[in-house]
Amino acid sequence: MMVLQELQRDPASREAAGEALALMASMYPICRSITGDGVRRTLDLVEQVVPLERTEVPTGTPAFDWEIPPEWNVRDAYIADASGRRVVDFRAHNLHLVSYSAPVDRIMSLDELQPHLHSLPDRPDWIPYRTSYYRENWGFCLRHADREALGPGPYRVVVDSTLAPGHLTLAEIVVQGSTDGEALVYTHDCHPSLANDNLTGIAVAAALARALRQEQPRLTWRFVFGPGTIGSLAWLSRNEHRLPRLRAGLTIGLLGDAGPLRYKCSRRGDTVTDRIAAHVIGGEPFSGMLTPFEPYGYDERQFCSPGFDLPVGRITRSPNGTYPEYHTSADDLALIRPEKLAESIRAVARTISLLDANRRVLNLSGKGEPRLGKRGLYGSVGGAGPGEFEHALLWVLSLADGGHDLLAMSQRSGMSFELLDRAATALEEAKLVRTLDEPSRGTDAVSRA
Amino acid sequence: MMVLQELQRDPASREAAGEALALMASMYPICRSITGDGVRRTLDLVEQVVPLERTEVPTGTPAFDWEIPPEWNVRDAYIADASGRRVVDFRAHNLHLVSYSAPVDRIMSLDELQPHLHSLPDRPDWIPYRTSYYRENWGFCLRHADREALGPGPYRVVVDSTLAPGHLTLAEIVVQGSTDGEALVYTHDCHPSLANDNLTGIAVAAALARALRQEQPRLTWRFVFGPGTIGSLAWLSRNEHRLPRLRAGLTIGLLGDAGPLRYKCSRRGDTVTDRIAAHVIGGEPFSGMLTPFEPYGYDERQFCSPGFDLPVGRITRSPNGTYPEYHTSADDLALIRPEKLAESIRAVARTISLLDANRRVLNLSGKGEPRLGKRGLYGSVGGAGPGEFEHALLWVLSLADGGHDLLAMSQRSGMSFELLDRAATALEEAKLVRTLDEPSRGTDAVSRA
Amino acid sequence: MMVLQELQRDPASREAAGEALALMASMYPICRSITGDGVRRTLDLVEQVVPLERTEVPTGTPAFDWEIPPEWNVRDAYIADASGRRVVDFRAHNLHLVSYSAPVDRIMSLDELQPHLHSLPDRPDWIPYRTSYYRENWGFCLRHADREALGPGPYRVVVDSTLAPGHLTLAEIVVQGSTDGEALVYTHDCHPSLANDNLTGIAVAAALARALRQEQPRLTWRFVFGPGTIGSLAWLSRNEHRLPRLRAGLTIGLLGDAGPLRYKCSRRGDTVTDRIAAHVIGGEPFSGMLTPFEPYGYDERQFCSPGFDLPVGRITRSPNGTYPEYHTSADDLALIRPEKLAESIRAVARTISLLDANRRVLNLSGKGEPRLGKRGLYGSVGGAGPGEFEHALLWVLSLADGGHDLLAMSQRSGMSFELLDRAATALEEAKLVRTLDEPSRGTDAVSRA
Repeated sequence: MMVLQELQRDPASREAAGEALALMASMYPICRSITGDGVRRTLDLVEQVVPLERTEVPTGTPAFDWEIPPEWNVRDAYIADASGRRVVDFRAHNLHLVSYSAPVDRIMSLDELQPHLHSLPDRPDWIPYRTSYYRENWGFCLRHADREALGPGPYRVVVDSTLAPGHLTLAEIVVQGSTDGEALVYTHDCHPSLANDNLTGIAVAAALARALRQEQPRLTWRFVFGPGTIGSLAWLSRNEHRLPRLRAGLTIGLLGDAGPLRYKCSRRGDTVTDRIAAHVIGGEPFSGMLTPFEPYGYDERQFCSPGFDLPVGRITRSPNGTYPEYHTSADDLALIRPEKLAESIRAVARTISLLDANRRVLNLSGKGEPRLGKRGLYGSVGGAGPGEFEHALLWVLSLADGGHDLLAMSQRSGMSFELLDRAATALEEAKLVRTLDEPSRGTDAVSRA
Repeated sequence: MMVLQELQRDPASREAAGEALALMASMYPICRSITGDGVRRTLDLVEQVVPLERTEVPTGTPAFDWEIPPEWNVRDAYIADASGRRVVDFRAHNLHLVSYSAPVDRIMSLDELQPHLHSLPDRPDWIPYRTSYYRENWGFCLRHADREALGPGPYRVVVDSTLAPGHLTLAEIVVQGSTDGEALVYTHDCHPSLANDNLTGIAVAAALARALRQEQPRLTWRFVFGPGTIGSLAWLSRNEHRLPRLRAGLTIGLLGDAGPLRYKCSRRGDTVTDRIAAHVIGGEPFSGMLTPFEPYGYDERQFCSPGFDLPVGRITRSPNGTYPEYHTSADDLALIRPEKLAESIRAVARTISLLDANRRVLNLSGKGEPRLGKRGLYGSVGGAGPGEFEHALLWVLSLADGGHDLLAMSQRSGMSFELLDRAATALEEAKLVRTLDEPSRGTDAVSRA
Repeated sequence: MMVLQELQRDPASREAAGEALALMASMYPICRSITGDGVRRTLDLVEQVVPLERTEVPTGTPAFDWEIPPEWNVRDAYIADASGRRVVDFRAHNLHLVSYSAPVDRIMSLDELQPHLHSLPDRPDWIPYRTSYYRENWGFCLRHADREALGPGPYRVVVDSTLAPGHLTLAEIVVQGSTDGEALVYTHDCHPSLANDNLTGIAVAAALARALRQEQPRLTWRFVFGPGTIGSLAWLSRNEHRLPRLRAGLTIGLLGDAGPLRYKCSRRGDTVTDRIAAHVIGGEPFSGMLTPFEPYGYDERQFCSPGFDLPVGRITRSPNGTYPEYHTSADDLALIRPEKLAESIRAVARTISLLDANRRVLNLSGKGEPRLGKRGLYGSVGGAGPGEFEHALLWVLSLADGGHDLLAMSQRSGMSFELLDRAATALEEAKLVRTLDEPSRGTDAVSRA
């Protein structure tokens, strides 16, 4: 019943990490933002790995309290000195331009320019990453060392960009499941030349989706690529009808740095996603960190907003603000550790696999034990105790009351999830139990009890 | 939004303690009991601080399983020896007379007298405090050293008292709130010349009520002065219609001794009163003790009886039986530590303030985050993390699901109650949340979940 | 109110243990199985202690997924060598024959015989116990040392048994209670010459039932003697109508070995049986072990199957598989420690006693405290604190809300179960509380809260 078995192990996970790194290298130079052609070119590269369904959402389309902003594209941007030398040049590094900068072409003194400049005094050699999506503005980010060296001017400041009606691009890979339940993996794709945040998330999602398409999961899995905040809001506003069937979900990203794996709980904190992820990420061999929900972070913010309150948690290594290179030019391909990326692939694959396999079964003959012996499921000579598989059969029968899923059975019995999965499958084949499949709210209400 | 801010700090709390001590000194000599003119004269003194609404409940009025007893007043009482010398004299100390002693005028030998005498062999210099409210009787309390010195008699024993149809006196200060919710502060006023138990309670209640009258609380606060047991029963029997609106309540008393602050939980143990008081009294800077409910104690016994089961806890320093001077003549004004009384004022003021400010708010746009930026509540340049107030806004929005009050938000987020109060107020002004106001049972049912 | 007081103490428990040992000695030689005359002869011996109600359930009668098997009786069984010498002889020890062996009379070589032989290489001097109830087969158990000494044959193998339509025998002692509630003690009686497992269970059940018949319990107690698995299934199938009234239950057995007392929880884990047994077995003076439910074990497996999910736990000393002599000829009378058997009697007697006395009471005057003084339940002179019994009265009144049983009151107040039992009785006599008696599901739902 379990899916993504191969990617949970070496050498498959190392191979997948190698391919992910190659994809990341091709995506790295592109200037992405929350809209624009950079996103589309990125998705073209993903599509070389796995086919995508794309949706273009027009500027001005409402998404709850928000609306799709104008589409942003840049041809060129620079600050040039009196001699025409570009002292800050978007073509050298796309982080130099504040994302969503409006067009400008002016001659300015350094003093006039300063309010539009961003640098990191503590990290004078790194270019910071800044955005101004929702208030029209423009700005440049630069190495603090370079900023200190700027003369009084005058400078010519050019942002050759367009901010115009267009579209926001969403992309999705749907792997059809055998039941009505659905699950979600969301990764943000709006960051420009930043590697850990979040080319790793894009590349890992693509690798897992490609593998899962070869299998038959129980749940229908949707892997969604979209910009942060406005992307998840747009997806939610177009998919509200699906949410009652959503049994589990993850946002993923920042999966290649040297930090430990980290699972951030959903707002409810006890959803099936939380319970499975705590079991996988917090357990052997990953021994990752488990952190409670907080309302700052990535797109889990939107999925977990109280009007949705979905069972969506987050898997990362070092998230926002917890590593020095975060949101700077130092978050580049050299920061990525291939063996950590491979471990992330194993961890997310196993989380998806258990989320997919986890289910509640109902004992169809709950008054007394059924005679396992006459169904070939139990040894015929008594007096000595039962073997491990027979024990697992007894546990599943005992807890198959509709209130325990396989994970709860594993935690109560001390037996492995996989053994109980096999026992439940054998009992279902013997028509002694049947799998219950219900929408996520019902399921969680029961599994919390 | 917060009330009683001044009294939570020095120098205002020290000043208030000084005034409370002066009031206590004027009340100390009066012979109080559960009825009678001593209570009325005491309330006259309170009324010099803050206006009172008084209720006189006639003798014989039922109060659940009880009824208002005859009113008791004493003119004189003594034991005189054959020479006419008063060897025990009510005029010297009103504790000498067992409260509610019936009239008597007899000549008796010491042997006949002994069953009517009460003393403390272990504390030979202290006069004990004894009562016989509900079985007609009489008796004298005296220093054990004096009792040992008594000759064989005969003695003339005089109690010049009346036990006759009259009234029980209740007094109340009502500070009107802006919502339907109500809250209660009850202090017993039936003890004769005993300072910690309970002139401190009377004086602290008067000081807080006077201050609160200058403000606009959310809840309607009632400060009630009445005798122990029969007073709270009488109040309850006259106020049953209010109880569904009672969101919080405290009995207070014994607030001036050297012991630590102590909060005793309501019977339910998880009401909003318990949660706020545990946060305030158990937290910094008070670091007081938290003790579970037990059915012995002060008037919380009646408020918490299972037929009412109200959210009423108790704040004291050293309660009944936990300090040697308790219920003896050594519980006099010299026992009171002014700085402890001031600390008690700060602690009760802060408890009242947080009980009043605590509320649940509902996110009116719960699907996704609202755009705080366009409402001026969020910085416009992204890429760096949010500030503390922005973080507090996100927490309030996330937990504004009707199931978390401000205290629960504080405990879950680790942010201060006051910061979240400000954030909730800002969000309410921006029409992003609205305050929920519901009767106490509903509120508690939710806040327990 | 409490029953079985005597058996909770010495010398009565030691005397009862001595009588139990004598009964066990008389039962030991009999060849019992899940059906047959050995069971009936055993019950004849029990009936010399206490009268039984017997039920004979015909072969083929359905019991949920099972049916009553043919009745098995043995006249003789042996393996003889060519000289006619019996090398394995059922008459020497009834464990030599696999229980439910079908008739056979054949000449066989050792090689042909081997698949039918059972021995313990690690315990070469002990005969193992083996059964083949539900698949027709035959076999012999022997000391491994003897098996090693067997020559190549040929051997004559004789099992002179019958497997024919007949009956399964159940026996029951019913002690009528004063309320509608019922309770169950089940012990399996299907093991041949094995002393700890389970002549101890049979003898202790008989001793307790005999004593309880002299008293007036609140609950109707049923002590049931039947074979493992099929016996409890047969009893359940005939008694389903009673189950809604079943408030508590125990399976008992293996009560005479040197190991510590051990209570195994019911499947629900928080039933009144679990709570009382944890209090008694886990508390002073027994300090036994508490183990969670698991679906392997004795007849609690059937009572706790999810379709019944009854409040039935298990008291043993060393259960299945936890002592080396288990299910071998070394589990004989010499293994039994008389003082441990006596301790088991005390522990089970106290568990039964508290299960019987435990009840919820409802405060009939819950608004405020009732006036205990006018009912003679409280001292009349106030000022000093209440005594222990008065305190117990206050606790019972406070917690008599229908949500606390006596055990919950004891755990919350820190007062002994017995003192609270006396206080509840006094309050019931004063018509201030009344006992609630409801079916087990309701009771447990409340006592869990």
